Amino acid sequence: MGKTYNICLDIGGTKVLGAIFDEKENIVYRLKKKTKEGGDSSENVEQVIISVVDEMLKGSEIKKEQVHAIAAAAPGVIDQGKGIVLFSPNLPWRDYDIKTAIEKKFGIPFYIGNDVNVGVLGEYKYGAAKGYKNVVGFFVGTGMGGGLILNGELFTGNKFKAAEYGHMILDPEGPLCNCGQRGCLEAFSSKQGMSAYIRQQTGRGRKSMMEDSVKDGVFKSKILKKSLAEKDAVACEAVDRACHYLAVATGNMINTISPDVVIYGGGVIEAAGDIFLKKILAEVDRYCMPSIRTTVELKNAALGDDSVIYGALAMIK
Amino acid sequence: MGKTYNICLDIGGTKVLGAIFDEKENIVYRLKKKTKEGGDSSENVEQVIISVVDEMLKGSEIKKEQVHAIAAAAPGVIDQGKGIVLFSPNLPWRDYDIKTAIEKKFGIPFYIGNDVNVGVLGEYKYGAAKGYKNVVGFFVGTGMGGGLILNGELFTGNKFKAAEYGHMILDPEGPLCNCGQRGCLEAFSSKQGMSAYIRQQTGRGRKSMMEDSVKDGVFKSKILKKSLAEKDAVACEAVDRACHYLAVATGNMINTISPDVVIYGGGVIEAAGDIFLKKILAEVDRYCMPSIRTTVELKNAALGDDSVIYGALAMIK
Repeated sequence: MGKTYNICLDIGGTKVLGAIFDEKENIVYRLKKKTKEGGDSSENVEQVIISVVDEMLKGSEIKKEQVHAIAAAAPGVIDQGKGIVLFSPNLPWRDYDIKTAIEKKFGIPFYIGNDVNVGVLGEYKYGAAKGYKNVVGFFVGTGMGGGLILNGELFTGNKFKAAEYGHMILDPEGPLCNCGQRGCLEAFSSKQGMSAYIRQQTGRGRKSMMEDSVKDGVFKSKILKKSLAEKDAVACEAVDRACHYLAVATGNMINTISPDVVIYGGGVIEAAGDIFLKKILAEVDRYCMPSIRTTVELKNAALGDDSVIYGALAMIK
Repeated sequence: MGKTYNICLDIGGTKVLGAIFDEKENIVYRLKKKTKEGGDSSENVEQVIISVVDEMLKGSEIKKEQVHAIAAAAPGVIDQGKGIVLFSPNLPWRDYDIKTAIEKKFGIPFYIGNDVNVGVLGEYKYGAAKGYKNVVGFFVGTGMGGGLILNGELFTGNKFKAAEYGHMILDPEGPLCNCGQRGCLEAFSSKQGMSAYIRQQTGRGRKSMMEDSVKDGVFKSKILKKSLAEKDAVACEAVDRACHYLAVATGNMINTISPDVVIYGGGVIEAAGDIFLKKILAEVDRYCMPSIRTTVELKNAALGDDSVIYGALAMIK
């Protein structure tokens, strides 16, 4: 019996997305499972991974002995080489050797990396950035994630902390970001940033379809899509502002890295279709040097919600 | 007779700096020569290089046969692998194969790279960034140059255009930069940026020791040093503003790259002593994520005017 399958997981703060790939890199089985939010111990998250893998094996009728490797991606600072989660903002992991724990349980090689880094790796190996050498990826969700491929390799910098594009400062006197800085890209262009703008505007008495959705947090991508389709003024302004700062941040990354391609992914980009990319393309020439602009392409991610799952597959040796 | 010497050149728009290194990497001979400004044909700049090398050989009494290689650094976009100058802002070179021209003349291997890139390489191999793996370098002069060492290698990005930190936008509504963008780091923190500020303030009737020096262009580093020593208010403000934006840009590079070290070099930093670094250090914590700040050091360049010369030496194989 050949070891022909790979199990890939996208571990979020509230759900785990799983896929089993066959030897031709086709997804043959999928599972989506909600996890309890916050407060759990490391062992519990580990238990969730184990139970998801068990459930996938059972559901797919694939035997443990047929699995070549398990690979996962999670938010946070992760030592990809050693398989240790150093820090995760939404998961109860600190310096946690998840690799040893999972390998001990299943006797199968286990890989883990930062979710956005891995998502960009997925787009590089299987998606929109395939065939390029140097890739900058922006992933727009609740926060703003980043990933960097340099010379065909995932670049994670000193202590695996690189590519925090969300916290690039674009206006030192700008709005306060969750991170404590002012005027970060994330404070303008993520769901958090856009929600704060909509909250501010509706708080001043303006009407918006999105008012309720931002009252106690961030909107869901679906309501943004609907509001844009119906040309809700406040929603459109929030998106214009988000795209303006995304264009500036893109220019900054182009001028500092000179990548071959910049890709945009994540839930917000997925939901809004080409709106973000079109607006960014309309502005970006102003924010990067013409000579460098000519040798870079800007594209949407191609794998949708599966960028991270495919990136996990790409980590497997 | 062993090929034990290397000739290294720092080619500027107005002068060439030359040094001959012995096999122990000591400088055994130096030459500084003014060149005519602008307008010259590619062949003439080539002639200047040839005459400088000839003059150095003569002056040092070293024979051509004793020279292992010649290496040079120049401003502009340079294909370091092929030795072709694709574009240079201050030199009359477009897609010019200087490598073949010089090798044909002397029969000695010739290397060439971008001056600031090469300067950071010099600091990496012989100076302040020795022993680090990922290095971000800011070089403050008339403009603002950058260099990037990643995983121990000079990173030049797609088409050799990377590390234009000077044109990172820090305020999309900021002052106009030479490049046509607004609010670039260079527009605040280079000699050009500081000179523009001083010109603006003296134009409004304020007094400054530096008034005359910025009337028709940029100040010389010496007068800045003197003005800071005498606490000239306008000069101090220009430097405070320059350091503020350098701190923001440093934070952005720390958050995006997670380097091991950031170094500051160039004529302005040289002249001002520790003033820039102290001011940047006092501010930078506000502009980068605490978790990434803890694993990066900030330092002044160590090789002074010789960063580029040493970097040229580092290019030689």
